[in-house]
Amino acid sequence: MAEEQGYRIERDTMGEIRVPVDKLWGAQTQRSYENFKIGTERMPLRLIQAFALLKKAAAQVNRELGGLTPEKADAIAKAADEIVEGRWNDEFPLVVWQTGSGTQSNMNVNEVIAHRGTELLDGDGAGAVRIHPNDDVNRSQSSNDTFPTAMHVAGVIAVEEELLPALALLQETLRSKMEAYADIVKIGRTHLQDATPLTLGQEISGWWAMLEQTARMIRSSVDAMRELAIGGTAVGTGLNAHPEFGARVAEALSGETGTRFVSAANKFHALTSHDQIVFAHGALKALAANLMKIANDVRWLASGPRCGIGEITIPENEPGSSIMPGKVNPTQSEAMTMVVCQVMGNDAAIGFAASQGNFELNVFKPVIIHNFLQSVRLLADSMRSFNDNCLVGMEPNRPVIERNLERSLMLVTALNPYIGYEKAASIAKQAHKEGLTLKESAIRSGYLTEEQFDSYVRPEAMVHPKE
Amino acid sequence: MAEEQGYRIERDTMGEIRVPVDKLWGAQTQRSYENFKIGTERMPLRLIQAFALLKKAAAQVNRELGGLTPEKADAIAKAADEIVEGRWNDEFPLVVWQTGSGTQSNMNVNEVIAHRGTELLDGDGAGAVRIHPNDDVNRSQSSNDTFPTAMHVAGVIAVEEELLPALALLQETLRSKMEAYADIVKIGRTHLQDATPLTLGQEISGWWAMLEQTARMIRSSVDAMRELAIGGTAVGTGLNAHPEFGARVAEALSGETGTRFVSAANKFHALTSHDQIVFAHGALKALAANLMKIANDVRWLASGPRCGIGEITIPENEPGSSIMPGKVNPTQSEAMTMVVCQVMGNDAAIGFAASQGNFELNVFKPVIIHNFLQSVRLLADSMRSFNDNCLVGMEPNRPVIERNLERSLMLVTALNPYIGYEKAASIAKQAHKEGLTLKESAIRSGYLTEEQFDSYVRPEAMVHPKE
Amino acid sequence: MAEEQGYRIERDTMGEIRVPVDKLWGAQTQRSYENFKIGTERMPLRLIQAFALLKKAAAQVNRELGGLTPEKADAIAKAADEIVEGRWNDEFPLVVWQTGSGTQSNMNVNEVIAHRGTELLDGDGAGAVRIHPNDDVNRSQSSNDTFPTAMHVAGVIAVEEELLPALALLQETLRSKMEAYADIVKIGRTHLQDATPLTLGQEISGWWAMLEQTARMIRSSVDAMRELAIGGTAVGTGLNAHPEFGARVAEALSGETGTRFVSAANKFHALTSHDQIVFAHGALKALAANLMKIANDVRWLASGPRCGIGEITIPENEPGSSIMPGKVNPTQSEAMTMVVCQVMGNDAAIGFAASQGNFELNVFKPVIIHNFLQSVRLLADSMRSFNDNCLVGMEPNRPVIERNLERSLMLVTALNPYIGYEKAASIAKQAHKEGLTLKESAIRSGYLTEEQFDSYVRPEAMVHPKE
Amino acid sequence: MAEEQGYRIERDTMGEIRVPVDKLWGAQTQRSYENFKIGTERMPLRLIQAFALLKKAAAQVNRELGGLTPEKADAIAKAADEIVEGRWNDEFPLVVWQTGSGTQSNMNVNEVIAHRGTELLDGDGAGAVRIHPNDDVNRSQSSNDTFPTAMHVAGVIAVEEELLPALALLQETLRSKMEAYADIVKIGRTHLQDATPLTLGQEISGWWAMLEQTARMIRSSVDAMRELAIGGTAVGTGLNAHPEFGARVAEALSGETGTRFVSAANKFHALTSHDQIVFAHGALKALAANLMKIANDVRWLASGPRCGIGEITIPENEPGSSIMPGKVNPTQSEAMTMVVCQVMGNDAAIGFAASQGNFELNVFKPVIIHNFLQSVRLLADSMRSFNDNCLVGMEPNRPVIERNLERSLMLVTALNPYIGYEKAASIAKQAHKEGLTLKESAIRSGYLTEEQFDSYVRPEAMVHPKE
Repeated sequence: MAEEQGYRIERDTMGEIRVPVDKLWGAQTQRSYENFKIGTERMPLRLIQAFALLKKAAAQVNRELGGLTPEKADAIAKAADEIVEGRWNDEFPLVVWQTGSGTQSNMNVNEVIAHRGTELLDGDGAGAVRIHPNDDVNRSQSSNDTFPTAMHVAGVIAVEEELLPALALLQETLRSKMEAYADIVKIGRTHLQDATPLTLGQEISGWWAMLEQTARMIRSSVDAMRELAIGGTAVGTGLNAHPEFGARVAEALSGETGTRFVSAANKFHALTSHDQIVFAHGALKALAANLMKIANDVRWLASGPRCGIGEITIPENEPGSSIMPGKVNPTQSEAMTMVVCQVMGNDAAIGFAASQGNFELNVFKPVIIHNFLQSVRLLADSMRSFNDNCLVGMEPNRPVIERNLERSLMLVTALNPYIGYEKAASIAKQAHKEGLTLKESAIRSGYLTEEQFDSYVRPEAMVHPKE
Repeated sequence: MAEEQGYRIERDTMGEIRVPVDKLWGAQTQRSYENFKIGTERMPLRLIQAFALLKKAAAQVNRELGGLTPEKADAIAKAADEIVEGRWNDEFPLVVWQTGSGTQSNMNVNEVIAHRGTELLDGDGAGAVRIHPNDDVNRSQSSNDTFPTAMHVAGVIAVEEELLPALALLQETLRSKMEAYADIVKIGRTHLQDATPLTLGQEISGWWAMLEQTARMIRSSVDAMRELAIGGTAVGTGLNAHPEFGARVAEALSGETGTRFVSAANKFHALTSHDQIVFAHGALKALAANLMKIANDVRWLASGPRCGIGEITIPENEPGSSIMPGKVNPTQSEAMTMVVCQVMGNDAAIGFAASQGNFELNVFKPVIIHNFLQSVRLLADSMRSFNDNCLVGMEPNRPVIERNLERSLMLVTALNPYIGYEKAASIAKQAHKEGLTLKESAIRSGYLTEEQFDSYVRPEAMVHPKE
Repeated sequence: MAEEQGYRIERDTMGEIRVPVDKLWGAQTQRSYENFKIGTERMPLRLIQAFALLKKAAAQVNRELGGLTPEKADAIAKAADEIVEGRWNDEFPLVVWQTGSGTQSNMNVNEVIAHRGTELLDGDGAGAVRIHPNDDVNRSQSSNDTFPTAMHVAGVIAVEEELLPALALLQETLRSKMEAYADIVKIGRTHLQDATPLTLGQEISGWWAMLEQTARMIRSSVDAMRELAIGGTAVGTGLNAHPEFGARVAEALSGETGTRFVSAANKFHALTSHDQIVFAHGALKALAANLMKIANDVRWLASGPRCGIGEITIPENEPGSSIMPGKVNPTQSEAMTMVVCQVMGNDAAIGFAASQGNFELNVFKPVIIHNFLQSVRLLADSMRSFNDNCLVGMEPNRPVIERNLERSLMLVTALNPYIGYEKAASIAKQAHKEGLTLKESAIRSGYLTEEQFDSYVRPEAMVHPKE
Repeated sequence: MAEEQGYRIERDTMGEIRVPVDKLWGAQTQRSYENFKIGTERMPLRLIQAFALLKKAAAQVNRELGGLTPEKADAIAKAADEIVEGRWNDEFPLVVWQTGSGTQSNMNVNEVIAHRGTELLDGDGAGAVRIHPNDDVNRSQSSNDTFPTAMHVAGVIAVEEELLPALALLQETLRSKMEAYADIVKIGRTHLQDATPLTLGQEISGWWAMLEQTARMIRSSVDAMRELAIGGTAVGTGLNAHPEFGARVAEALSGETGTRFVSAANKFHALTSHDQIVFAHGALKALAANLMKIANDVRWLASGPRCGIGEITIPENEPGSSIMPGKVNPTQSEAMTMVVCQVMGNDAAIGFAASQGNFELNVFKPVIIHNFLQSVRLLADSMRSFNDNCLVGMEPNRPVIERNLERSLMLVTALNPYIGYEKAASIAKQAHKEGLTLKESAIRSGYLTEEQFDSYVRPEAMVHPKE
């Protein structure tokens, strides 16, 4: 195969192949690129960056253990740093739908680092030292242990850098709202039906607690992802790796990333099971279920403006209809609830994929991490967007809240100690039947005076346990 | 707000907003772009193109009914054509995670067509005629009827242009293989255990029939998606649209696309239910389940080379290990089975989203069509890739097939009519216990001669019903 | 093993086993009963009954083809009839979680029919003729073709006898409501926000159309389940069956059941793929999604009584709180929406299971049919319960409907032709800002008189396209 | 309504209703029984028992706080104990598909305890003291806090009593196998293709570690379910309950059950979110995914007997075909993998249901706990069944393991240090091409002697990292 314009010739064990001359990748990347023209979903950049961090750590450990010269190890580290910084994002063209071990993306990283590392060693290409994708960059490693390692590193970092801060932001806004509205008594609703009262602050505290609970779940479940497969090589036995390789790389990665990683105790498990990701995504699903509830509450409470519940108002970010002033569509809630549907779907995809391992390897790795990272991203972004564009500007609509509370019949409960259940019930029934307020019905009943009613029926006394 | 370098000022009912000067979109697109920084999943181009086809058809019908001048209608049609041709792909930057009615993407299309249509009317921008995004491009329409219309149009076209041809291609390859291997008798397997024989052609015919069945399901279920919401406008009543608008637009779309569309009989249903997409995606899921089985069969039959089943060989597309010649990883099967996991997840997301409509509108439309079109694309692409890079080159490994057939004990069934079940069973049991072939055990038993064995035990007679 | 009190000794190829003396089943049923103590979910009776119908049809065809004496065939038919009638329900103790081919339940049916058939031939047990579970009842059959046949027969009958009539009942009620309320104009809602009006009859017609659509989907998709595996025997080749066996049994089943069944064209497909059930359950999922929407609409429209939407009332079937008269919890909606969640889950289970076939057999059959039949039952029962206990008694709350319509601001649209958009908008804006009705704001604006307002603003003219 | 034969008349606020005279339940149970004829799935007995434990604890706390006489509290406690012991299982006829708060099952328990408690106080029914279902048994409680409390208590106990012991049993068997087979070197497999070797003990250690990991996940996630809603009453405010009621009941429940429970910090969360159950079921799903992999490995390794992998043998529990000795269907694997499908489906149902709360209450509680407890039961039972009927009797098939290892080509890796990669590769390639063993090919190559080959190629040295 003669070199053609715009291409150079690369070789691997299958022979020659043309690669675009301006690309850093090599033969194996090119083959995958040509053989898997499926969809548009590229391997997530977060995963590529985690791979680069791993290659840097591996190079350092290989140097320590005598497997790489300092010169080569440095070049690998520098090339890896450039990838982490995002300089070579276009060099990772492979899609999720490739080999299920992710071998081709491992080789893509190996090839780019080898190529770029060689360039760094030797600006003009005339140098004697060449960094080899397999022998140097992939040294003491296999796709089968590096890919799951990169999955865990990427997942933990994405959760820590994207998800938890967004969650904390949303919680902070909720906390300030729950404090600000601690004294606004409003009607409660169960079964969508009027129930006993609570404060708006209490209602919002429920949302806050939902986030608090799931933040805890996410943190604890993601901890299990700190265990890394590295050191297991091809089938988990660690063949061709130094016995300390895994532990040392985990330590180096901890140093590099500032977050703790350890070597998995059982490497056979680490290659073939993705229980930790299933579990951690279960926490994301719990968060999603909670967000669905919160986003729904917000849009129902803001429904109206005239023919809905209307107890809160939310910011108007886009033009409603030019005819209907006051029609504020709860678009941030809608974006969030759609994200929730996606996360539920992703959860199904991940659980299915994780169950399909055979023998020494699960070959559904790319689809698992693709879905996990997508969920993290969508949840984080939609929480932030919901916070900034909706929740921060949410306000109670006090006249409506007060009117609803006043009109509600269930406050009659407060009369039981004074006139007994039977008479109280008859007051409420008459109010319902004739469309009266409780007070009107109470006075009309003759069982008590207006003054008595006002002193007995105090919703603000109904929002906590009786002492 | 003064115009700044690189931006122009656009206005809508909420006021002014800066839009990049080189962009065709307007204020509402810009607001959504800024308010929904969620994920990277853009509204699918197929949907945008379906929208453009719809806008063209609507313009034509509005002209017929007197609502648009021929001049404007032509400009809209031309601008829409350019979108369909892919000329303005970068003008649709909005993500899936926006308002659940898709209003913002409808407005994105309206704004781009209005801007571009005005340009087409008047190259230098000095003309008196301006095309208005709402009054002209969106005339007689609402987001609430256009978005579900575009969903159906995009879905039907994607299935017809992408999915069904890929499916047919795969079936064609299978048909040629089932004919070519019609006479290769091999061992059958049930419960993963050796069973009575069949031909390799018969085994492949089962795969072919799986595709034939699901192709039929897909075609029939997608037919329900030919019903369009257009004409329902804001809530399904058709307020502000001519009574014939929906039917005429459906007819124009049929003419434009070459595939049949009709106006939905009940527009309230058409805005608020997505049962047709749930149903059609159920057919995609059935296809996915079948593809999982086929791709699994292929990789298990090709497992080995020495320690697996090894009855077929598949092409080696990428380097296996440089150490282990003959190790051909079934990477195309792996890509396909990962796609199946995704489709299963997408199915869950769609079903959930479709269940969440309220009153006159379901506001989970973007997530539904995003998942539907992704499934179509991934299934189509992976079938094509699997076909070209794996199935076409699949070959029977005749020595292994023959050895397995010969070693199998279940052929003993054929002796029943000659020596009775008891003696036949004792031959098989002895073979199993002592590791003999059936023939060896039969001869050693003394119940029959080698000649008799050879004439009685003929696997090729066991692959069809007894006459 | 000596016979003990209360037990008799049965034998199979594995040896002896004790069976309770009062039970009709035999050794293989007993072994499964002892080896699979998993959960409480028994193999559905509908499936057992379909098996009995199949065994009767098979006996008839075996007699025609000379494989069974008329005496035996009659006894099998009679015993099968008794099973269909429900006389022996306690004789089928096996759970869903057994062998994935359902072999043990096939043998359970074979054993019970053989035992009971022998009794019927010979009251005192001294007769010479014995019906054999395998040689007679299972003649020309295998578990591998009978189980999927029984799945399809049971599924089709369940849909036709349970689901479609319940669906039709619900539709009938909706039709009468949509006609009765054809003239009640009410506010529409999109994004949970007030929108342009429609009639209550139109709103209900959307629900009706949702059922009409899904009824069609269910009927068409279930048609694919009319194809039967019978005749394929162990691996699909039909070994040991007469070439006409499958077609004749399908015909006999059609006659027996009164609904059409045919022999599957490709028996390899019929044993190893369950695409038809996946597809048909997709239609059930579409129905479930629609029911979720309908049940939600009902409970939201009935929300209140004072602080919700309250446009309809639904029957009070259970005591609400003894304190809060008028609190009617929408319990039938709640039961239905919980059923929907289950159907969504079942759909995931079925899709997963259907994808896991290998080679000549899918061994996830029991879990597939268990879920399918559960969905049918739950959907049918909950539709009937919802109809009888909620929908029939649903009534419009006219004062609320009228008040909402009157208070709504979006009727301002009707003024556009008379005073122009700008002035109309200013009227609406002022009404929103100051809490006025549209009419109050209009009159206060001075743009038109009370008489003009009343003649222009007629919601009943806004519920259909403009002529 | 006159009393009729076999019925007594019960009354509630809706009037009179006939209840079977031999039943302990009352009017509200009877109404639900009649109004919800949906499916056959009764409210799980584990939940009923948890309710009884709760009622006993509540009675004790009410006595302490002065709300109940010791006499009544004792009677309630005794009646509750009888329920826990299973004496009244037939008194809980209500189905899962009822009101979404589970009110009717709470009342069922209240009514049965009240009736039975009154009987215990006064054998002949003439006594003056009557226990009231609401005022006494339900004192200081609401369905809205008792039902989620019972869900958590039932869930925690089911996991601790059923699931974790079954898991530990399976782990124990695996541990003994992994130790017993620590020295059996076998071929590894990745991508279903032959790979480098490991020991059978190592392979099994991967399974063991999968269980170890998920046991940890289950324990930690179930911990979150120890938080109880009790004390929140109707909407979470604790109206009508003593401030210490929740904490005291949690303490009493801890004492009664021997496992720790605490009062939830935020009761608004506790009524309206089920994130803890979603999360805990995510751990069950991770276990399910792992079990799928283990059960699949077992049946694939046992596939054959002649034409599969056949490296292990598993017990023959049921007759295989009477013709094919040695055909042992992996039925326990099949039962388990079907259970996995169900758990995946249940997970989807739970996630969906948990997302659908509104305002102060999630009304999908029964479907959530039904699915959770079904998953626990099915996983526990199938692990136990798989252990007892399959895993305990699993044995290595040493001749096959050795033959596979010997035939494998990948051992060639061991020659690299001696003759270099190129020559080693050529040996392997020739072996593959000509169907030789590695040794035959090596000797034929002339690169090394038989003695050298035997000393260099030692698979047992390839199953751990190089020192």
